[in-house]
Amino acid sequence: MVNTPAVDLLFDSVASKGHVCVGLDTSPDYVPKTEMQKAPSAAQAVLAFNTALIDATSDVAACYKVQIAYYEEMGLEGLAAYAKTIEYARKKGCLVIADIKRGDIADTARCYAKAHFSGAFKADFVTLSPYMGMDSVEPWISEAQNSGGGAFVLMRTSNPGMKDFQYLETTDGKKLYNKVGDKLTELACKYAGKKGYGLFGAVVGCTERQEASDIRKNYPNLFFLIPGYGTQGGGAQDAALLLREGNGGVVNASRSIITAWQKENNNENADNAFAAQSARKAAIKMRDEILHETNGRT
Amino acid sequence: MVNTPAVDLLFDSVASKGHVCVGLDTSPDYVPKTEMQKAPSAAQAVLAFNTALIDATSDVAACYKVQIAYYEEMGLEGLAAYAKTIEYARKKGCLVIADIKRGDIADTARCYAKAHFSGAFKADFVTLSPYMGMDSVEPWISEAQNSGGGAFVLMRTSNPGMKDFQYLETTDGKKLYNKVGDKLTELACKYAGKKGYGLFGAVVGCTERQEASDIRKNYPNLFFLIPGYGTQGGGAQDAALLLREGNGGVVNASRSIITAWQKENNNENADNAFAAQSARKAAIKMRDEILHETNGRT
Repeated sequence: MVNTPAVDLLFDSVASKGHVCVGLDTSPDYVPKTEMQKAPSAAQAVLAFNTALIDATSDVAACYKVQIAYYEEMGLEGLAAYAKTIEYARKKGCLVIADIKRGDIADTARCYAKAHFSGAFKADFVTLSPYMGMDSVEPWISEAQNSGGGAFVLMRTSNPGMKDFQYLETTDGKKLYNKVGDKLTELACKYAGKKGYGLFGAVVGCTERQEASDIRKNYPNLFFLIPGYGTQGGGAQDAALLLREGNGGVVNASRSIITAWQKENNNENADNAFAAQSARKAAIKMRDEILHETNGRT
Repeated sequence: MVNTPAVDLLFDSVASKGHVCVGLDTSPDYVPKTEMQKAPSAAQAVLAFNTALIDATSDVAACYKVQIAYYEEMGLEGLAAYAKTIEYARKKGCLVIADIKRGDIADTARCYAKAHFSGAFKADFVTLSPYMGMDSVEPWISEAQNSGGGAFVLMRTSNPGMKDFQYLETTDGKKLYNKVGDKLTELACKYAGKKGYGLFGAVVGCTERQEASDIRKNYPNLFFLIPGYGTQGGGAQDAALLLREGNGGVVNASRSIITAWQKENNNENADNAFAAQSARKAAIKMRDEILHETNGRT
C-alpha cells in the first residue's frame, strides 16, 4: 500500500486551517507552576501541557513541530514524552514535523529514517541538514515513500548566524542556500506529490524580507517550513512573501504561542486549561494575520 | 571546579595508545547470532556486544565513537543501550565521542548540549553540523567548559556527496569547507586547551588525499576526527597526512573493526568473546599501520 504523501496532506491542511505550525519546543519552564507541582516528573508535566495545547489548537493549526532537543535534555523519560506527544497529535488526525535536523549518510541515514518514519518516533515529516551533501538526504526518500513521510531540508534559516555560510557567494553568483535549493528542486521534480510540490521541501526563514520573493519564485515546487515568526522578528507580511497562491508553506511559531499564557493577567494561578486557551487565541490571531496578508482570505 | 578539556585528554590518549577511534555504529546485524539468541532484546544484545568490544580494545583505542542513529532506530530501549555504552566506556577511563551531528541554535542548542555534556547521555565529545552558522556551535562552548567536553564540527567529510556543497568555491577562492575551517580556527584560538589545539576540532575525512596536506597546514590548531578509513576507502597514508607531529587527530573505523569477526574462518559459532578478539586484532593492525606512516613510532 502506498500512503498519501505527507506534503499533499499538509497542502490540504493549510487550505482548510491556515498556515500556522505550532512549535512544541516545550521547556518545563513554559508549563504553569500549578501543573508542575501536580506532575510526577518534568517530562510528564511537559506531555500533559502538550496534550492540552494540541486539544485546544488542533482545528486552527495546520500542523505541529516538535523540537526534539527539549525532550532529549530530559533524557529517556523526555524522549518518551516526545514520542507520546507526536503520537497524540497524529491520533487526533494532525500532521507532525519532528524537528530533528539530522544529516548523515548511507546506513546511518537509513537508521534515522526508520526511527522517525516507521519506528518509535513515527512522524509525518522530519527536518534535515544538508551540509554532508545530497547523499545525506536521498536515503530518506525510500523510507518516506513507504510510510507517506516527508522532510524539510535546511536551506535559508532564520538565525543571525545563517549569514556565516548560507549566504556565501559561490563563483557562479549564487549563494550557498541557492545551491541547496537547486539540488532540492531536482529532488522535488523526481519525487513529487499531487499538489505541485516535492515530497521533500525546504526550511526558509521569514526574518529576512529581502530575497523572499525571489526565493519563492525560484523554487516554486518546494513546500516551505517557515521559522522566524514572532519572537525571532518575522511578521505576517514577511511570511506571506514565502507562500504561493495562498499555500506552499507553513509558518512556525513556538514561544509566541505556547507561552502566550505568561503574558496574560492573573497568570499566577494558571493551569494547562488556561494556558491552552491562551495558545488557541495566539494561534488564531497569527492564522488570521497571515491569511489577511495572503489577499483577504479571511 | 574546571575540568581538563577533553581535547587535552585525547591528545594524551593518542600519544600513549595511537590514533584509532573505534566506531560503535552497532547494528544488531553485527552481533554474533549465538549472542542475539541469548539476549532478551536486540538493544541488550548490542549493549553486551559493545561492552565486550570495549573490554578487548580499551588499551589500543584512543577513543570510541558511538553513532546514535543505530540506537535511535531501536527506540527508547536502543537509546538506553546508547547511554549505557557511553557510560561503560567512560567508567573504564576511555574517551567517548557521541556522533550526533547536531546543529541548532540558541536555547535548542543549549538543550542538546546539556543532554550530552551533563545529562542522560554524557560524553566527552559530540559531533556538530555547521550549516546554520556559528551560532549553532557557540552555545555548546560554555556547557563544554563546565563539563570538560569538546566537539568536532563537520568540515570536510568522507562521503561522495561532500562535493555537493562542501567543495563549492566561494568568490574569494576558498571552498565552503575552508570557510568553515576558518571560523572554527577563530573559535579554537579563543577557546584552547593546553596542547596546542582548540576545545572544538573538525571532522576531516581521509578519502580524498588531494588537499589533505593543505588542510593540515592551514588549520594547525584544529584537532581532527578523521572518518573514511577502511570500508570507505581511506588508508593509513591518507590518514597520516591529516596528523600533525604524530598527533592532532584520531582516525575512526567502525565496520572494519567491529565486524572483523565476520571475515574470520569458523565464524558460524562465534560469540562476543570471539568477535571482541577479532576487533582487537583489527584495531591493533590499524593502529600499527598508522603509526608506521607517522614516521616509525612503532
